[in-house]
Amino acid sequence: MYRPVGVIHSVHQDTTLTPIQPVFAGHCKGQVEIYPEFEDGLADLEGFSHIYLIFHLHKAGPARLTVKPFLQDTEHGVFATRGPWRPNPIGLSIVELQSRQNNILYISGVDILDGTPVLDIKPYTTHFDHIEITRCGWLDDVEDGDFQNRGRRAGK
Amino acid sequence: MYRPVGVIHSVHQDTTLTPIQPVFAGHCKGQVEIYPEFEDGLADLEGFSHIYLIFHLHKAGPARLTVKPFLQDTEHGVFATRGPWRPNPIGLSIVELQSRQNNILYISGVDILDGTPVLDIKPYTTHFDHIEITRCGWLDDVEDGDFQNRGRRAGK
Repeated sequence: MYRPVGVIHSVHQDTTLTPIQPVFAGHCKGQVEIYPEFEDGLADLEGFSHIYLIFHLHKAGPARLTVKPFLQDTEHGVFATRGPWRPNPIGLSIVELQSRQNNILYISGVDILDGTPVLDIKPYTTHFDHIEITRCGWLDDVEDGDFQNRGRRAGK
Repeated sequence: MYRPVGVIHSVHQDTTLTPIQPVFAGHCKGQVEIYPEFEDGLADLEGFSHIYLIFHLHKAGPARLTVKPFLQDTEHGVFATRGPWRPNPIGLSIVELQSRQNNILYISGVDILDGTPVLDIKPYTTHFDHIEITRCGWLDDVEDGDFQNRGRRAGK
């Protein structure tokens, strides 16, 4: 049984206009407000330039086992995508941590809806998270133009 | 309210002997058994060489807001560490996906206890997850010898 440790404040009010990943969110800024009772857990986090946010996709809608991801008109298993319609609607984003003031984290690269409940924060590290991969599945087949245009969902 | 979508099978039976991250788990192999009702969600996952596993740290013990991480004898906020004693005991590991047979994923680099409940799986991608960072917090101060010896927890 998990409970929110905080909440995201962002400019994104509409799921259909929200960038699908931080890489498409450019300089979208936002804040993570950690509830005061968890503030001590943030000590020294400001030493890291990037952090993982793990959050509850509270507007995801019903789970589906196969989905068409935003970047491609082909059906894939939901676990082979980063789409929100998952059996457990858990979101994962890597954002840049610009500064911390007490229980507020100032972040950029924000692809997360305003009001999203935060479940956990972890430091992103070169040692653990910067992996050399050999295969990137169906994403290797997405054309560059689709990648940029669909990811940002601008004007959609 | 999340429910397990599967379970990890690994050689790690004892928390004190389990490597703390995949980078220390070398060629430790294991399997993710996804429950049959979720098998369709795995379609095309085998195209990716690496995946994120998100799991419930079922043996974590009580949460603490400041902790000494395995790699250093200095207290840090729990959100600035990858330790298991988190307000929401959610684990995150990047493992190599070697193959899939129906609902079974064969993985290596396994730093996860046998019997751990799996909550979600996501593809690890160069585009979204391979981030150039500038600061790595207290981990920049861990000496190479400590990094290798403490991470593996061999013989402890």
